[in-house]
Amino acid sequence: MLKYPNGKPYNPKNITSKNTMNKKSKDFSFGNRGKTLEDEINETNAYYLSRQIAIIHKKPVPIQIVKVEYPKRSAAVIREAYFRTPSTTDYNGVWNGYYIDFEAKETESTTSFPLKNVHEHQITHMKNVVNQQGIAFTIVRFSKLNRYFLLPFSVLYEAWSNMKKGGRKSIPLGTFESKSYEIIPGYNPRIDYISAIKKLISGEN
Amino acid sequence: MLKYPNGKPYNPKNITSKNTMNKKSKDFSFGNRGKTLEDEINETNAYYLSRQIAIIHKKPVPIQIVKVEYPKRSAAVIREAYFRTPSTTDYNGVWNGYYIDFEAKETESTTSFPLKNVHEHQITHMKNVVNQQGIAFTIVRFSKLNRYFLLPFSVLYEAWSNMKKGGRKSIPLGTFESKSYEIIPGYNPRIDYISAIKKLISGEN
Repeated sequence: MLKYPNGKPYNPKNITSKNTMNKKSKDFSFGNRGKTLEDEINETNAYYLSRQIAIIHKKPVPIQIVKVEYPKRSAAVIREAYFRTPSTTDYNGVWNGYYIDFEAKETESTTSFPLKNVHEHQITHMKNVVNQQGIAFTIVRFSKLNRYFLLPFSVLYEAWSNMKKGGRKSIPLGTFESKSYEIIPGYNPRIDYISAIKKLISGEN
Repeated sequence: MLKYPNGKPYNPKNITSKNTMNKKSKDFSFGNRGKTLEDEINETNAYYLSRQIAIIHKKPVPIQIVKVEYPKRSAAVIREAYFRTPSTTDYNGVWNGYYIDFEAKETESTTSFPLKNVHEHQITHMKNVVNQQGIAFTIVRFSKLNRYFLLPFSVLYEAWSNMKKGGRKSIPLGTFESKSYEIIPGYNPRIDYISAIKKLISGEN
């Protein structure tokens, strides 16, 4: 077994811990063992990539870099930078000739998905994608229920448009059960959203 | 005319100048007026987006964030971060149901495109994309000649594979002229690579 110099066993999670510093609250229930939805999607994408099932990557967070130092004999260090607002969703890629584009969202609610989790630029981007015949959706995790859904953009857009006209500000769980595709979490792939996409395509055609 | 407080006329280039701090040498010939290829592609993508011709974005540079400060009443400041190696190409998106994925490269050479400009991870990624029936290519600018080409991945891969077997380390201009699609730069869109993709598709089918 590989060990660090401090005698601890090698564990890839130790290395990636910096990546999770800005994560939202974690759910330590048995089902997802403290993983964020982002962790789960990243694992799923790594699995898809390793099996050549789909090529989907998370986009880096856009950063406005202002100041960089170039120390001798070591890597460049960014010393001043700011977070920028993304103009797209977080994930995109290709599966079986289809352009795939999605956002991943978690909610602590057990009854509905609050639309305040969704931003105007994401709606605009997903609408553009669908107009170009891409496949756009949101993966929603009801963390307390340990339930996952692939919410097609058409359903999200209908709810969003209703809200803009003064309608309700969330999508009830019942709508997920009737109009979206539930993903039962597994071991590998963790969140098999490609199987849900297959249902989405066959259901819509 | 809009003016800055310092009396200088408003010019969007002033605002984006920070983004170009790490750019390579610029060519100030009449043809591209000192713009980098990245500037030209970004302009082209903005045009495509505004006309809903295609939805293509540049991916942000991946950054490993180590330290963030949260000053009161102002935006979070990243105080320590490092550049990471990307695992994909720089641009991707969707056009007319096709998944589009590419890299943009400039060369000062007037006779050939050096393959040292291409990285192993980009080859691997583009190969994966083509296996999933996406469209992958490289846009190459011969800056001193003011000539632009859409180099299909198949042609790049052949040259790359030859190099790995000890063959030549560059792709001659003649190969671009015979096996890729020249893009004549215009005003708007500046680098109309979608028209070149149309030729690529009809040529291959």
